[in-house]
Amino acid sequence: MNTPKKTILPKIKELTERTKEQWLKDYCTFLSYPSVSSEPEFKQQVLDCADWVSGYLKKMGFAVEFWPTTGHPVIFASYMKAGPDKPTLLIYNHYDVQPTDPLEAWQTPPFQPTQKNGEIYARGANDNKGQCFYVMQALKQYLQIAGSLPLNIKLCIEGEEEMGSAGLSEILKKKQDALKADYLAIVDLGLRDPNAPAVTLGIRGLTTLEVELRGSGVDLHSGTHGGIVTNPIHALVSLLASVRDEKGRITIPGFYDDVVEMPIEERTSLSFTFDPTGYTKITGALATGGEKEFSAWERAWIRPTLEVNGISGGYTGVGFKTVIPAIAKAKISCRLVPNQDPQKIGELVANHLRQNVPTGMTISVQVRPGGGKAVRTNPNANVVKAFARAFEDVYGVPCEFIMEGGSIPIVTELAAVSQAEVVLVGLGLTTDLVHAPNEHFGLDRIEKGILIMSRAFELLSE
Amino acid sequence: MNTPKKTILPKIKELTERTKEQWLKDYCTFLSYPSVSSEPEFKQQVLDCADWVSGYLKKMGFAVEFWPTTGHPVIFASYMKAGPDKPTLLIYNHYDVQPTDPLEAWQTPPFQPTQKNGEIYARGANDNKGQCFYVMQALKQYLQIAGSLPLNIKLCIEGEEEMGSAGLSEILKKKQDALKADYLAIVDLGLRDPNAPAVTLGIRGLTTLEVELRGSGVDLHSGTHGGIVTNPIHALVSLLASVRDEKGRITIPGFYDDVVEMPIEERTSLSFTFDPTGYTKITGALATGGEKEFSAWERAWIRPTLEVNGISGGYTGVGFKTVIPAIAKAKISCRLVPNQDPQKIGELVANHLRQNVPTGMTISVQVRPGGGKAVRTNPNANVVKAFARAFEDVYGVPCEFIMEGGSIPIVTELAAVSQAEVVLVGLGLTTDLVHAPNEHFGLDRIEKGILIMSRAFELLSE
Repeated sequence: MNTPKKTILPKIKELTERTKEQWLKDYCTFLSYPSVSSEPEFKQQVLDCADWVSGYLKKMGFAVEFWPTTGHPVIFASYMKAGPDKPTLLIYNHYDVQPTDPLEAWQTPPFQPTQKNGEIYARGANDNKGQCFYVMQALKQYLQIAGSLPLNIKLCIEGEEEMGSAGLSEILKKKQDALKADYLAIVDLGLRDPNAPAVTLGIRGLTTLEVELRGSGVDLHSGTHGGIVTNPIHALVSLLASVRDEKGRITIPGFYDDVVEMPIEERTSLSFTFDPTGYTKITGALATGGEKEFSAWERAWIRPTLEVNGISGGYTGVGFKTVIPAIAKAKISCRLVPNQDPQKIGELVANHLRQNVPTGMTISVQVRPGGGKAVRTNPNANVVKAFARAFEDVYGVPCEFIMEGGSIPIVTELAAVSQAEVVLVGLGLTTDLVHAPNEHFGLDRIEKGILIMSRAFELLSE
Repeated sequence: MNTPKKTILPKIKELTERTKEQWLKDYCTFLSYPSVSSEPEFKQQVLDCADWVSGYLKKMGFAVEFWPTTGHPVIFASYMKAGPDKPTLLIYNHYDVQPTDPLEAWQTPPFQPTQKNGEIYARGANDNKGQCFYVMQALKQYLQIAGSLPLNIKLCIEGEEEMGSAGLSEILKKKQDALKADYLAIVDLGLRDPNAPAVTLGIRGLTTLEVELRGSGVDLHSGTHGGIVTNPIHALVSLLASVRDEKGRITIPGFYDDVVEMPIEERTSLSFTFDPTGYTKITGALATGGEKEFSAWERAWIRPTLEVNGISGGYTGVGFKTVIPAIAKAKISCRLVPNQDPQKIGELVANHLRQNVPTGMTISVQVRPGGGKAVRTNPNANVVKAFARAFEDVYGVPCEFIMEGGSIPIVTELAAVSQAEVVLVGLGLTTDLVHAPNEHFGLDRIEKGILIMSRAFELLSE
C-alpha cells in the first residue's frame, strides 16, 4: 500500500484486521434480512432490516430519522459535529434487494450468508448491502480510532432502489434542507477489473415501455386462419426489427437528435480499452452488438441504446400448439446519454411503434413512469479527485476513469436537491452476479472499501 | 327436406326424434370420459373411454378389435355382412380429446356435459366425439330400421389424434389388409356457415420447427451490456421478420418451388366467396394477413404459410426487468399445399434460419417429427358426389365445396394404406371453440349428422 504520511489508513487497516470476526458477523446479520422491496409479502422484513441499520448507526452516534414514503421508508442519518467550517458529504446507498427468483438456481440459501473462498454468497452481498456496509464500517472505525469524523456526514439509505425509487423521489423536495451537501457519493458502482481501481464518471439514463399488439378476440387455429389474418407475433417482430438498421443504428426519427457528443477532454480521461477475450470469458457473449461505427465501451457508455427486455406471444411450453395468438407483447428499455430526456425519448419510441403498426392490429404502448436522465460527473471536481486519490492510496496503482452503462435514476434528482458535486464509486465486479442467483462479494473488497472511504473522508476534509 | 323417393331418411328422422332422450344420454356418457391423450395421468380414462366405444359398437353387432400401439389403442370395428358385391366404406374418427387448460375459463366443467340453448358444452363435444357419435348413431339406427347395412363398414377410431397420431401411423402397414376399402370418410371437418352444407375438398399439410438463439452464458444487465452484445431477442425478431416480404410472400429460397397451382376445374368447383363482416364478427380479426395477391380463402386453402406459433425471451411478468436474456425462442409451423414435402420444407426453413443468424449468436433449429402432406380430393369421385348429395338431401339446398386450412396428418397415410377414394366431411363450425375452453356442439347437428351418414350409406351402396 502506497501509504502517504499523516493518514489514518494504517490504523484503520490494523483495526479492520483485528475486528474482522465482529464486522463479518454484522455484515452477515445485515444480509440475513430478506428486504425484497418489490414483493409485498416481505414488507415487514424490509422494515426489520431498516430497523437494524438504524440501530447500527445510532450506536455509532448518528442522529437517525425514518422518512416515511408511500412505499418503504428512507433512512436518513447524520453526523454534523465537524461543524460549519467543514464540508458535508452525503452518501447514497440502499438497503433493499432484488427478488431471489429463480430460487432453485441458488447453491446456498440467499438469506443465509455463506462464506466460500473469501467471498460471501447472499442476495445483496454486493447490491447494495455489501457497499452500504463498508461505508458504515468505515465511519464506525474512523470514530473508534479518532473519536470524531473530520467532516460532516449525511447518509441517505433508501428502501426502494430495486423498484424504481418512487418513494425517495416523492419526498425529495420536502427534504431539500436536510439533504443539502457539498459532495454526494453514490456508492453503488463497480470496477472493470479487481486490480484496477476506478471512479465512474457517468451513468446512462433510462426510459422503459410496454407494448401490446392485438390481432383477434381469441386465439385462432393457425391452420384454419393462417394466411387470412395478420399474426400479432409477425406484426411485433416486424415492428421491433424495423427500429434498427444494418449498422445497428436506431431508425426512430429524432432518437439521436438531443445526443451531445462527449467533449474531447472528458473522452481522453476515460479508459476505453476493451479486452474481448476477458469479456467473453465473463459473459459467454461476443461484443458484436450495437452501433458498428463505435467501439465496445463507447456503445455501452456514451451512446444510447434500445433493448427489448422481454417478448412473449402464443404457446411457449413443452411440445407444440398451432395457435395464432390474440396478443403479442414486448418490454422495451432505452438507455440514454446527455441530453436525452426520458419522457421525450419514451414518447418518440411509442409514437413510432403506433404509427408503423401493420393494419389489422390494435396497438397499446405505455411509457412507464420512473425513468431517469444520464449523469456525467466532472473529472476535475474536488470530490472526484479525492476519491480517485483514495483509490490510488489503497490500491497503490493509478486510478482509472470509467463509465457505467446502467442507470440509477434517482441520482439526477438527488444531485439537484442536494446541490452537491457528485462522485460515482463502488467495488462491484461483473462476476458478482448482482440481480442473479448466487450473488456474492469479496471480503477483501469490504476491507478495501473501509480503507477507501476512510481515506476519502480525510482527503475531503483537508 | 327435399327427400327423394325410396330412401330410409324419413324413418331415420322419426327414430332420431323418438329416441332423442336415449341417444342424448349416450352422447353425454361418451363426453364424460376425460380421454385426454397427451396427459399421462389420464391413461386409464383414455382406455375406459375406448372400452365404452367398443361396448357400444359390439352391442350394435360390430366385430371390434383393439389394435395396441406404443401409445393409446386404435379401435377397429367392422360390419362386413353386406358381402363382397357391395362396396366397403372406411370411416375415420378419434376418441381422444385436447387438454382442458385453462380450466378456469370454462363456464361449466369440461367433463360434465351441460345443455344450453340446444348446444352441449363439453371437451370433445365437437372434436371429435360429437362427430364420431353421429356416425355410430347413424349405423345403430340404420340397423334398427333395416335390420342390416346396405354396404360394408369399417371404423377406425384412434386415440392419439390430438397428439399427432403416432400410434396409428406406426401400425398402418401391418394392418393394410384390414383397412382396405373402396371409400374413406374422414369425419373431422366442418362447415363455413350452419346453413350451408359443404364437403371439404382438401386440407393443408404441416411441418413444425423449434428455434433457439443463444447470445450469452447467463442473462446480462441491459444497462451494463446494452450496446456491447447482440440481444438474442433482436436477432430473433430480425430473423423472423426477414422470412416475409412486404407483400406477405415468404422469402425463403425454394419455399414455393414445389407448389402446384390448383387446376382451373377444381378451382371453379370451390366457393371462394369470403364474408369479411361475418369473419370479423366470429374471430374479432381483420382478414389483412398473408400474401396480398391472393384472396382470403385462397390464402387459407391453396397457399402455404409460415406462422410463428410462439415466441419467448427475457422478462415477461408484471413490472420490468432490464435484462438481456441469454436465450430467445420461437415455435414455427408451415401449412403446406400439393406437392410440398413436410421434411423438405422444414429443412429449407431451418437452413435459412441457420444461414442468416447474426454473428454472436448460437442457433439451434429442430424440425419436429410428425408432419404431414396436404390432401386434395377429387370433386368427381363417387364418394365425394355421394356425400354432397346426402348433404343436399338433408339440408334441402345445394352443397358447396370448400377446403380447410388445417391439417390431419394421418389422412395421407390412411388413404394410401386403404387404397380408398377419400372424402373429408363434418359438421363443425368455427364458433364451436374446439381446442379452447367452452367447446360445444349443437344437438341439431347430431341429428343432421345421423341423417347425412345414413343417406350416404344408401347412396354409396346403389
